[in-house]
Amino acid sequence: MKNFLFLNKNEILEEYNKLLKVYENFKRKNIKLDMSRGKPGISQLDLSLDLLDTVNSKSDFIARGKIDVRNYGVCDGLEEMKDFISEVTGVNKDYFIVGGNSSLSMMFDAISFFMIHGSCGVEPWCKQKKIKFLCPSPGYDRHFRITEYFGMELVMIPMNSDGPDMDMVEQLVNKDASIKGIWCVPKYSNPGGVTYSDEVVRRFANLEPAAPDFKIFWDNAYFAHDLTPNTVPLLDIAEECNKLNKQEMPILFYSTSKITFPGSGIAFMACMGSNLENFKKMYSVKTVGFDKINQLRHVRFLKDRVNFFNHMKKHREILKPKFDIILNHLSSEFERNPILTWNVPKGGYFISVNTVSGCAKRTVQLCKEAGVNLTDAGASFPYGKDPEDSNIRLAPTFPSLNELECAIRLFCICVKLAFLEKNLY
Amino acid sequence: MKNFLFLNKNEILEEYNKLLKVYENFKRKNIKLDMSRGKPGISQLDLSLDLLDTVNSKSDFIARGKIDVRNYGVCDGLEEMKDFISEVTGVNKDYFIVGGNSSLSMMFDAISFFMIHGSCGVEPWCKQKKIKFLCPSPGYDRHFRITEYFGMELVMIPMNSDGPDMDMVEQLVNKDASIKGIWCVPKYSNPGGVTYSDEVVRRFANLEPAAPDFKIFWDNAYFAHDLTPNTVPLLDIAEECNKLNKQEMPILFYSTSKITFPGSGIAFMACMGSNLENFKKMYSVKTVGFDKINQLRHVRFLKDRVNFFNHMKKHREILKPKFDIILNHLSSEFERNPILTWNVPKGGYFISVNTVSGCAKRTVQLCKEAGVNLTDAGASFPYGKDPEDSNIRLAPTFPSLNELECAIRLFCICVKLAFLEKNLY
Repeated sequence: MKNFLFLNKNEILEEYNKLLKVYENFKRKNIKLDMSRGKPGISQLDLSLDLLDTVNSKSDFIARGKIDVRNYGVCDGLEEMKDFISEVTGVNKDYFIVGGNSSLSMMFDAISFFMIHGSCGVEPWCKQKKIKFLCPSPGYDRHFRITEYFGMELVMIPMNSDGPDMDMVEQLVNKDASIKGIWCVPKYSNPGGVTYSDEVVRRFANLEPAAPDFKIFWDNAYFAHDLTPNTVPLLDIAEECNKLNKQEMPILFYSTSKITFPGSGIAFMACMGSNLENFKKMYSVKTVGFDKINQLRHVRFLKDRVNFFNHMKKHREILKPKFDIILNHLSSEFERNPILTWNVPKGGYFISVNTVSGCAKRTVQLCKEAGVNLTDAGASFPYGKDPEDSNIRLAPTFPSLNELECAIRLFCICVKLAFLEKNLY
Repeated sequence: MKNFLFLNKNEILEEYNKLLKVYENFKRKNIKLDMSRGKPGISQLDLSLDLLDTVNSKSDFIARGKIDVRNYGVCDGLEEMKDFISEVTGVNKDYFIVGGNSSLSMMFDAISFFMIHGSCGVEPWCKQKKIKFLCPSPGYDRHFRITEYFGMELVMIPMNSDGPDMDMVEQLVNKDASIKGIWCVPKYSNPGGVTYSDEVVRRFANLEPAAPDFKIFWDNAYFAHDLTPNTVPLLDIAEECNKLNKQEMPILFYSTSKITFPGSGIAFMACMGSNLENFKKMYSVKTVGFDKINQLRHVRFLKDRVNFFNHMKKHREILKPKFDIILNHLSSEFERNPILTWNVPKGGYFISVNTVSGCAKRTVQLCKEAGVNLTDAGASFPYGKDPEDSNIRLAPTFPSLNELECAIRLFCICVKLAFLEKNLY
């Protein structure tokens, strides 16, 4: 195993030519693989098949309170659905609004609300001059795109191993009233797999924002998506804020998209004070109600805490070997050749890797040309631009084990090729 | 049968006392009935039970193009769903975006979009000073509430038997650039049951709005909801506008809420030009996709044009007797005692009645006190205020035939009592 950092020009050329041949061989295989998005694999989808049968033509359709779930009404969700989500997340039941199939939509709706109506006695965001949003990076591209879509300036915040750089967050938020919010994936973050430490969560709750209408968008998308038998604990931001009488600051989001069916799951929003009032009002104007049949399906299938975590264990048993293939290859190829570093996630859907500066785009391009689609380099950064051009998000959940084996072998070659190319002449 | 309009003071008192006794008898029955909303009845819901079985743990999940509907993606809807809705509505397939469970949400999203982003090269609505929206009345309360929620001024437009008063619409829209749109339920309107004539539809398409960003919100909620064997024809506003190169003006909405399950149906939006581009972009930012499993359920259950209209015929067979009970009672009680007038709808979900001026609120109150809930008087007008206090919306779809029989008898008594009360002294 050679350490590429210590090669001389001749050795670089030699290695390059050798690897190029292997790469060209790969190309001839006509592979077609997609490792670009955090999609559950088919065997994961199969775990929830029984959900489809829980409400059928022969079943009853009656939810608590004698509600026929087939008809109109119950805008903020079935009681038993709220009980369930509270039980598995530990968040106060009364904070929840049960939504449709997409938590991203609920985030979009919340931003829309603040844009048009404002909150906390301050002018609507659309009427304020320049407004900014903090984006801990690498982070979730779809979050950043929402705030970009609404014309906000995206401010990059570096991620540490225990959460966003809180010194920087405090410095910015507590001084600059044009900063209106921050995107957070507080557990097993996308893509870095970072879980915020208790200290980081407390520092969030203790923010003293210059903007009275500053909001923390707390997307707990991977709250139960462990890759190890022991979950990594996360403080409840709602209660931390509640203790400090900052009910207006946090808005929490959950979803069963990666628990049952992506696109046909249930989304949740949890918040307090005027946020809760405002969003309940908003949804009562926006819709007669979300899909209660699907809520009943979910309650009947997921049942309770014990059954739910048993279900998540089955997901883990499918996912763990997939992550292991990637991690094992990375270890054997780059442990002693540190032109690539990576995280070892304890949960979530991604492995975040860093090439040396300026090699990420080229690596992704080389993979693509040989038939393996990765997330665009830079996608995890505001405006899709990684200032270092070094971060790549690997999404090992969808492909089969064989496909992953093939994809990661190609990936390792491309990382090396991109590095060598850059140092060729 | 007395004509109350010709009673003298003594006769009024006599009639009043007589009816009051009947009313008090009703009260003692402890009735509890809801005729307030356009909810399908349980036997209508039962028509779609088989839909729940079309996708189950034993079925396949593959849509056209080898799409596994259980997973993420396909933001603007399954191809076969677009084919279906185009086939049954006659609207060009390419105009459609398939949404979630609520067409009301899509209307809200569209208004939200124009508020924040604007269109047709004009400033966003939230940045313009005063903006107004036309509300043909009586109309759908939830429409009016959306525009009220966004802070617009609601302008009442009278409804004629062939659609809104187009002289007034033209006069306002073609002169006042602060008028940004109009709400329309063009077929079997809520609550008046009016279908817009070809001339009215053409006059809509021929509007020359002072506002370049003027929009027609065309909620064709009852497009297939006939109460007679022959549907009442309606011109295609999209094509009428298209011919005149006014692609940016109309936005059409459809929904299966009153075809399969309210709250668990499929909503659709159809539009052209920049509207279509803008909304596709918006939804691609707002969500990874709508519920494709439910789309597949609907395609498999509703199948095609023939099957669909056969399904709607079953709805009609359930609804027709319900409407008949109400209409027969109204005829026998008020045909020769014209203190109440009403429409005879050929489709839709409502019967719209008019008391003499100033009697609607009191009638609804009397019904409520005897246990029958009607839609609030005035609800069908902007801000919930009927300037004449005369319109009441009757929603006969949800109660059983026996319940309706009871409710309409009470209603007729309350109409009379309210009239007599007003003329007592």
